[in-house]
Amino acid sequence: KRPREYGIRFGVMPTGSLNAITDVPGVRVGQVTIQQGANIRTGVTAILPHEGNIFQQKAPAAIYIGNGFGKLTGYSQVEELGTLETPIVLTNTLSVPTATDALIDYTLAQPANGEVRSVNPVVGETNDGYLNDIRGRHITKQHVLQALQQARTGPVEEGNVGAGTGTVCFGYKGGIGTSSRKLPTSLGGYTVGVLVQTNFGGVLQIAGVPVGVKLGKYSFKEKLDGSCMMVVLTDAPLDARNLKRLAKRAFMGLARTGGIASNGSGDYVIAVSTAYRIPHETTNPFDEVKLLRNDNMSPLFMAAIEATEEAIINSLFAAQSLTGDQGHQVDALPVNQVLDLLRKAGQI
Amino acid sequence: KRPREYGIRFGVMPTGSLNAITDVPGVRVGQVTIQQGANIRTGVTAILPHEGNIFQQKAPAAIYIGNGFGKLTGYSQVEELGTLETPIVLTNTLSVPTATDALIDYTLAQPANGEVRSVNPVVGETNDGYLNDIRGRHITKQHVLQALQQARTGPVEEGNVGAGTGTVCFGYKGGIGTSSRKLPTSLGGYTVGVLVQTNFGGVLQIAGVPVGVKLGKYSFKEKLDGSCMMVVLTDAPLDARNLKRLAKRAFMGLARTGGIASNGSGDYVIAVSTAYRIPHETTNPFDEVKLLRNDNMSPLFMAAIEATEEAIINSLFAAQSLTGDQGHQVDALPVNQVLDLLRKAGQI
Amino acid sequence: KRPREYGIRFGVMPTGSLNAITDVPGVRVGQVTIQQGANIRTGVTAILPHEGNIFQQKAPAAIYIGNGFGKLTGYSQVEELGTLETPIVLTNTLSVPTATDALIDYTLAQPANGEVRSVNPVVGETNDGYLNDIRGRHITKQHVLQALQQARTGPVEEGNVGAGTGTVCFGYKGGIGTSSRKLPTSLGGYTVGVLVQTNFGGVLQIAGVPVGVKLGKYSFKEKLDGSCMMVVLTDAPLDARNLKRLAKRAFMGLARTGGIASNGSGDYVIAVSTAYRIPHETTNPFDEVKLLRNDNMSPLFMAAIEATEEAIINSLFAAQSLTGDQGHQVDALPVNQVLDLLRKAGQI
Amino acid sequence: KRPREYGIRFGVMPTGSLNAITDVPGVRVGQVTIQQGANIRTGVTAILPHEGNIFQQKAPAAIYIGNGFGKLTGYSQVEELGTLETPIVLTNTLSVPTATDALIDYTLAQPANGEVRSVNPVVGETNDGYLNDIRGRHITKQHVLQALQQARTGPVEEGNVGAGTGTVCFGYKGGIGTSSRKLPTSLGGYTVGVLVQTNFGGVLQIAGVPVGVKLGKYSFKEKLDGSCMMVVLTDAPLDARNLKRLAKRAFMGLARTGGIASNGSGDYVIAVSTAYRIPHETTNPFDEVKLLRNDNMSPLFMAAIEATEEAIINSLFAAQSLTGDQGHQVDALPVNQVLDLLRKAGQI
Repeated sequence: KRPREYGIRFGVMPTGSLNAITDVPGVRVGQVTIQQGANIRTGVTAILPHEGNIFQQKAPAAIYIGNGFGKLTGYSQVEELGTLETPIVLTNTLSVPTATDALIDYTLAQPANGEVRSVNPVVGETNDGYLNDIRGRHITKQHVLQALQQARTGPVEEGNVGAGTGTVCFGYKGGIGTSSRKLPTSLGGYTVGVLVQTNFGGVLQIAGVPVGVKLGKYSFKEKLDGSCMMVVLTDAPLDARNLKRLAKRAFMGLARTGGIASNGSGDYVIAVSTAYRIPHETTNPFDEVKLLRNDNMSPLFMAAIEATEEAIINSLFAAQSLTGDQGHQVDALPVNQVLDLLRKAGQI
Repeated sequence: KRPREYGIRFGVMPTGSLNAITDVPGVRVGQVTIQQGANIRTGVTAILPHEGNIFQQKAPAAIYIGNGFGKLTGYSQVEELGTLETPIVLTNTLSVPTATDALIDYTLAQPANGEVRSVNPVVGETNDGYLNDIRGRHITKQHVLQALQQARTGPVEEGNVGAGTGTVCFGYKGGIGTSSRKLPTSLGGYTVGVLVQTNFGGVLQIAGVPVGVKLGKYSFKEKLDGSCMMVVLTDAPLDARNLKRLAKRAFMGLARTGGIASNGSGDYVIAVSTAYRIPHETTNPFDEVKLLRNDNMSPLFMAAIEATEEAIINSLFAAQSLTGDQGHQVDALPVNQVLDLLRKAGQI
Repeated sequence: KRPREYGIRFGVMPTGSLNAITDVPGVRVGQVTIQQGANIRTGVTAILPHEGNIFQQKAPAAIYIGNGFGKLTGYSQVEELGTLETPIVLTNTLSVPTATDALIDYTLAQPANGEVRSVNPVVGETNDGYLNDIRGRHITKQHVLQALQQARTGPVEEGNVGAGTGTVCFGYKGGIGTSSRKLPTSLGGYTVGVLVQTNFGGVLQIAGVPVGVKLGKYSFKEKLDGSCMMVVLTDAPLDARNLKRLAKRAFMGLARTGGIASNGSGDYVIAVSTAYRIPHETTNPFDEVKLLRNDNMSPLFMAAIEATEEAIINSLFAAQSLTGDQGHQVDALPVNQVLDLLRKAGQI
Repeated sequence: KRPREYGIRFGVMPTGSLNAITDVPGVRVGQVTIQQGANIRTGVTAILPHEGNIFQQKAPAAIYIGNGFGKLTGYSQVEELGTLETPIVLTNTLSVPTATDALIDYTLAQPANGEVRSVNPVVGETNDGYLNDIRGRHITKQHVLQALQQARTGPVEEGNVGAGTGTVCFGYKGGIGTSSRKLPTSLGGYTVGVLVQTNFGGVLQIAGVPVGVKLGKYSFKEKLDGSCMMVVLTDAPLDARNLKRLAKRAFMGLARTGGIASNGSGDYVIAVSTAYRIPHETTNPFDEVKLLRNDNMSPLFMAAIEATEEAIINSLFAAQSLTGDQGHQVDALPVNQVLDLLRKAGQI
């Protein structure tokens, strides 16, 4: 069960109907989970902003770097041009090149892209090398293409799945999590959806309750470190500048869970709008766009903060104990104990 | 009484002895509070990193911009050169030029600075225009020089004082707050001190307890907006790059109080190290420095997050109800109700 | 006479009719030159992007920092919000606060701005402290307001005027310079206008001819240092992201004159579009804008490079020898020798 | 013959003995040129800052982005941590993942790196898709490893070699170029070496002479576009902040050749110091470093500008006419005509 089903609330804004990134219309997620033998615990998660040819119909996008100890590809072109031209793929640290190459394959192979000679894949990662034989680089291009192909709308699987298969978060089993917010009509009615790959440390706090302290498991008491990839989608009509501001708020959501963005952390937020598209080629010299004014951004900021906080906690509730490489074992969050703590705090 | 005296705890690290920015050796704070008649509610807070001539003995420094809707001066030179060469002054939005000019006066007037023809004052602000007749620009250079002159080590006054005289935070009276953390020797033993000028909105959370929701006072239910200036001092030997990383963590501390960095927010963090100085002139072509390694930054990151969270809440506990310009009235945080909520949540 | 009247050509694109920043329709420039007694050699240059109330009708804008050893105010808000809400004022380093305060006066005083409690003045500077008694801070608010009031369209005075009164460039007398480019209709037909305040060093190159070397006057042979403020206006419909890219190209134009952006240099470019305005308040939640596509930016980039190069050289041709503070004397560029060199090089 | 052998001079500072990036002691370059059949015209260029294990002994580094339409990997970690932990590899756009993967192989395979689970490869590129069948992705990991293995000190081959095999610059055949500057002892005596992969457009200017205009070949007269990768090595003891400033000056050198950093350009500068190393692991909590002061940076800035300008022109002089994919043909720079033009301009 997801935290919200236990009555836990994160913030004050209502969720979308699935409480998932896929509440943003047209957004699809595909995941491939790779668990083989004693030591392979990894995978791929792909997020597609729309159902068309993303290279030909680019999506407005921006990337915020919380802490840059990571291997995200595609940063500079997104920043320079303000657009995303491939799906977003998440995987493990040492498989970024494979996933990048697969996105090139994917792009070149699309019928309308026969003349494409340059493409900017966006691939993020966290390091699952504690549970996964990461040096073995077991992700293949086929795995990535499969994740892209099976991407779909609707509910998103959370926990030990896709790029979250082998991750560790606050000393517990981390993974993929997702959440969304739907603004009231008076604030624009937009949806903000977030998907996270959780693999980081700090002092876990759930809906404000200091769970990490109570359970005696937190950074510098134990050695906790690592990264968090965050993907934010919205149907609000934002340009790259305001998407970057939105992305920064996801990082604030991470802070609310007790994350500290430690030195070794690769904390990146990729924010994308589905409200309009920028054609790769057109005879119109202009992009004619209707952009939400700066003045109307604040509700979206709050939505991104809340949805990111919830997505991270969702990943922890969904993830299950796992044994992997070198016999390393990571326990799932002890949900019953956590629920007890939240009950005592009056949070459920 | 400060929150900690009620038993409220923020995070897991111990505070310095004063739980104030002045726990960092040599750091001095001076404040001038200006309350006159029915409509003047403003002031000046000055922070001096060391007792010497700051222009001649510059301090390593960096500035992180959370949300840049603000009028901070001095940003680009600090970023380019990695040093601070004046005290830091905080005041109200429309008095930044006056304070900047006063810092020039202050610098030019120092005996060793007789040939100085260029100086980079660092002045931050938030907008106290709800309680204060800000358009009247009642801050004078004399007020600023007075704040500098009376700067001292030791306890720092909080609440409706100095640059926090007229500010509003989470719909309650905001102000100046301060806090510190002292790392255990095993983590380096360094002190991180924070001082904040709180004037922002969101959904107030105190030590994780959703006070804003419980009291029915939060952004988009009411119109809350505004800014937060944060100053971080440390005796850890950091260069500008790692100071900027540290500064970013203060912004994460703000997130933990429920701040959302709304569109209209000017959220800036100025981080300064007192561990060494960069002489303005010297015959040595080199800065010979002993810098903390990246690997050892994470405890400092956690310290900055915790101290910022606590400093913000401290400002709210210390501030008192105030009536000002146009009869506007802002109530103090209802501390008794808050303590009740924290008791129910098991946080005290 | 301006360089172009001698037949010197900079690049390949045609100029606007005035070869000035005021070729961009609606742009006005006002300058106040302050020469008093033996040691006051300074001034103010104001650039207004349009004739309306700039606070109420903000202009899309961005700022690029070449080398940040300078005191520009207003950077972070322009970057965060993508708009300019005051005229741009240039002056000397230590008079930035005075000019900033004057821009606040100017803004608050406008009839429609009666409720304004926050405004982000943009003031740039270079250091005229060799010829001017800069420590005396002889610029008054009245000087700044006068520059704003007398701003007008039409030809722009160059050389020892306004903020360029006391500046030094490549060891010769610098000052204010301006130039423009008008793209052919096939490339969009847009105008790019540049105004510079030149006060920097390097190895002077005029239309590619190594004048500095030939005249034996260049950095590290002599002590040359300093800054360059660049203002770029265009009627091309650009948002802040593409304006920042355009601004960066002005810095490339500086490089073409032999500037090296030395350590002590404050090289800033403020780029503004006049093609549309962002209202301060409106009932429309959207900015409905028609923006030039990324693909069409390159001709504007070339225009900004060429116009900046020419504006800098124009400032040198226009400036006249000047004696100032402490009897310091700076000679004008020896135009006849320069013309000889250019003739020999086949450049005229 | 290289331009300097014809008597062409770029700037005023002396070169190192090889006039190559390898004038910086310990720096090695390895190149693999891949020309096969009618349509494969590509390659790999690797630059190694020192002869040790770069992962274990990281080099201080920074990256400046001129125009970010490119696929450089490794940016954010270099920026966050200020270090380079792999060799730098340059190749073609669509082979970046292959080269990245090869750098992972290379790093994991080194004896001391048996426990490495995270590594940040730095791979840059330009697009050789006009002469090369870039969609075929003909670079293999073996090619990259070979470039790394055969890296050596001494003279560096220029022109149609390595990553410059199939590039086009100012409408002529581009390629690899290199140059260096050695500061006089009075300015520190440091060496700055630059290596470029030239593939861009604009209005070619050689030692200030407007060659592009004279030959009737320039942007918007013809369709010229593209990118330039620049690598700057120095033995000056700089930290990441000053290396980034140095990197920016290489971009100024590009401007001096007539480059315009067009919309489609991926212009990146990677700057690395060889003066000290940051160990991956150590018991010392500090980096004890002796860093060149800001005040002493300007001569290095000039050196980087000059060396980059010369390296670009060197690439054009060395490159030879080439026919490649789809029968596309690109002519070499007509050196004799160019020399004539330079003679007429008095530049040789």
